[in-house]
Amino acid sequence: MTGHRCEGSARTGHLGLCTDLYELRMVASYLRQGMTAPATFSLFIRPNLARPWYVALGIERVLELLPRFTFGPEELDELERLGIDRRTREQLASWEIDSGELWAVPDGTVVLAQEPLLEMTAPLPVAQLLETAVMNLVQYPTLVATKAARCALVADGRKLADFGFRRAHGLETGIEAALAAYLGGGFATSNVEAGRRYGLPTTGTMAHSYVQACDDEREAFRRFASDHPDHSVLLVDTYDTVEGVRRAIEVSRELGITPRGVRLDSGDLGQLAVEARRLLDDAGFQDAEVIASGGLDEEEIHRLLSAGAPIDGFGVGTSLTVSQDAPGLDIVYKLVEYDGRPVAKFSGDKSIFPGRKQVFRRDQDVAKDTLSVRDGDDAGTPLLHAAWRDGTRLIADFDHETVRERVREGLQLLPQSWRRPPYVEHTPLPTLGRALEDLTEEVRRSAYEDG
Amino acid sequence: MTGHRCEGSARTGHLGLCTDLYELRMVASYLRQGMTAPATFSLFIRPNLARPWYVALGIERVLELLPRFTFGPEELDELERLGIDRRTREQLASWEIDSGELWAVPDGTVVLAQEPLLEMTAPLPVAQLLETAVMNLVQYPTLVATKAARCALVADGRKLADFGFRRAHGLETGIEAALAAYLGGGFATSNVEAGRRYGLPTTGTMAHSYVQACDDEREAFRRFASDHPDHSVLLVDTYDTVEGVRRAIEVSRELGITPRGVRLDSGDLGQLAVEARRLLDDAGFQDAEVIASGGLDEEEIHRLLSAGAPIDGFGVGTSLTVSQDAPGLDIVYKLVEYDGRPVAKFSGDKSIFPGRKQVFRRDQDVAKDTLSVRDGDDAGTPLLHAAWRDGTRLIADFDHETVRERVREGLQLLPQSWRRPPYVEHTPLPTLGRALEDLTEEVRRSAYEDG
Repeated sequence: MTGHRCEGSARTGHLGLCTDLYELRMVASYLRQGMTAPATFSLFIRPNLARPWYVALGIERVLELLPRFTFGPEELDELERLGIDRRTREQLASWEIDSGELWAVPDGTVVLAQEPLLEMTAPLPVAQLLETAVMNLVQYPTLVATKAARCALVADGRKLADFGFRRAHGLETGIEAALAAYLGGGFATSNVEAGRRYGLPTTGTMAHSYVQACDDEREAFRRFASDHPDHSVLLVDTYDTVEGVRRAIEVSRELGITPRGVRLDSGDLGQLAVEARRLLDDAGFQDAEVIASGGLDEEEIHRLLSAGAPIDGFGVGTSLTVSQDAPGLDIVYKLVEYDGRPVAKFSGDKSIFPGRKQVFRRDQDVAKDTLSVRDGDDAGTPLLHAAWRDGTRLIADFDHETVRERVREGLQLLPQSWRRPPYVEHTPLPTLGRALEDLTEEVRRSAYEDG
Repeated sequence: MTGHRCEGSARTGHLGLCTDLYELRMVASYLRQGMTAPATFSLFIRPNLARPWYVALGIERVLELLPRFTFGPEELDELERLGIDRRTREQLASWEIDSGELWAVPDGTVVLAQEPLLEMTAPLPVAQLLETAVMNLVQYPTLVATKAARCALVADGRKLADFGFRRAHGLETGIEAALAAYLGGGFATSNVEAGRRYGLPTTGTMAHSYVQACDDEREAFRRFASDHPDHSVLLVDTYDTVEGVRRAIEVSRELGITPRGVRLDSGDLGQLAVEARRLLDDAGFQDAEVIASGGLDEEEIHRLLSAGAPIDGFGVGTSLTVSQDAPGLDIVYKLVEYDGRPVAKFSGDKSIFPGRKQVFRRDQDVAKDTLSVRDGDDAGTPLLHAAWRDGTRLIADFDHETVRERVREGLQLLPQSWRRPPYVEHTPLPTLGRALEDLTEEVRRSAYEDG
């Protein structure tokens, strides 16, 4: 899979300006001050009750970014306009990210808050300048894959389709959302370009406008079903939903086809699904599916299915592609080591543990995770792997089905209250390994001594 | 200003697949059934209490889309894989959007729910297939410009900067966010690529990592301020904020420079701002600014300023670029006329008024708007203009300062409860013009007669 995440800069071929101005100011200063020793930044998510766990996704995007994080003539001109000094610009002109090490959990890994999704070790200016783009590239895929996984868990075997292209934050973002939703547990997307680019299964029915452009609903169903006898999921709620189901059945009989299903997009979906199912069954169309859509979110899906609504598939739009109940993750990229010295921050909620980390998982159960130092406690299977070193990729090619399987495995043992409402009331965190506790205590002591 | 919103398809040069599969299925059917008469779709936002008004933005993006909404060999291959029939594919192969008419409010216009941001009249298959992309291209800029305008209103003259690149939904989206935030009322962005591409003012300070990579805070301030004497906004909250302010002052004196300011990123921002201001003033640094950041949203900005916090500027991140309290607008694109016949839908909350519309504004006051039919009531200055006709652009070039001025004008007369907390408790709607009421009644009657 290839991808150029930042099309604007793709025009110039260089992504080096996909950063915040303060990063550039700091880099200019690091270079002047000779602060170029190796630094390790750790990317993790701060605890947030809205999400007890995450499906990590976007590591692949970071690997794609590294060779493209360069500065061409247009970028260098801009740096001059910004007052970045000549020596810094000369160094950035020949900048290539070809030394250092990226450790990461494989895409699709289920992780907890505080657990690093990746750790970048590189000369301080390099690791610093990457902050903004790395955070951006990991957050959104993780957000959507996690949301899709949550929706798939409550849908409990029913089909989950991404209908959210139109309300994603940008066209390109809608295409990325379709991929992330599929990887997180969706079965298909309505997004045609995503289907083409990533080979995703696509799905689609019909809209109210089709029905309204025809003289009446019956005529609309007749036309659509005869033009698409194999894809005749008919939208039945333009006027009266139950009447719409009856018409869909009559037209199917008249045309001698088996309807693929009906879609309900408004009203009391639970009640209407019962009536639609009964009418379809009575007509001998047991295989016709009842599809629900219209502002659905995981809470509503759970409510419908808990009440026994006979719904076979859900189209989820806005709430999936913007992760409506939690549209931003408190994702951070924090310095944890510089020049061999572990660095920490002790300030209540925003504490940061020092040093390079590892996450150890026992029995494939995320609830038993231990967070420790990279080479510390042997408390299970390590999740972070060296993904890139000195310009060379070290992990296997990105493969959709492998990622999907990893998500499935990661969700398998989730406790009930992490899977569906009512959700857990305290954000779960990994156990701290002994070696990390010791290091933290050591850093804390020396901070007080210096302080 | 040029822009290619959908980079993936930009690779193939064609954006025709930036749509949902159901649009293509409907189009295939329209073409087979000869349903190619002119259709008008109206794009508007359904009432939502979270946003009493909107800054319309994205019309320019739609104008950029139209000539690029084409199908090349890769797109046509994909359509074949999807089972779209040969005749349809042949028609799409030579597809050019060169007939029809787009009416729109100018970018930056302040509008209410139910008021069309744009109306597209074109042969039914064309207008239908554009639905997904048009909604996508208008929603996000409108979302962010509106959020920025809300933040700017509560900031009440203080500087508002976009710090949200890292948590925007994609790199390209972060760049678009920076532009939309500037147009909506921001003064600068931290986003360097957005600065380069759109010529936006950029701003940036320093991060905790810089302080932590140095041996101590004093040394960090010394290095940073001597490297950037003109941009020395020092981040003072890495260890102890008040102590940090003192150190910033000492270092500035030692270097003989006037600090540009200090940034507070955590803790009780109101209280800390008071102490920072006092220390800076006592040191004779009256011009040094106190900048606040760290998870800020408009409610918090309002609370701080209402309590008299001496803050000169705000950096707003996630809540701006993902519009955190309302990350999706209930934006819709609905058929309102087909083949000269006005079309409506009567179903409670989701009612749609028939026919081509116009919005009339009196005294430049959005609270006095009238929504009516296109050529109906003469109830003020019409807001929608013909922006494009038969392939030709009819409106002036996009210009940042013109858009910003339009936003300022549009916000000038907003009632107090639309400007800042406590916000209005009922979503304001335009008055319905007599001509629209009559048309709606007529369509309703004929629906019952047919029904």
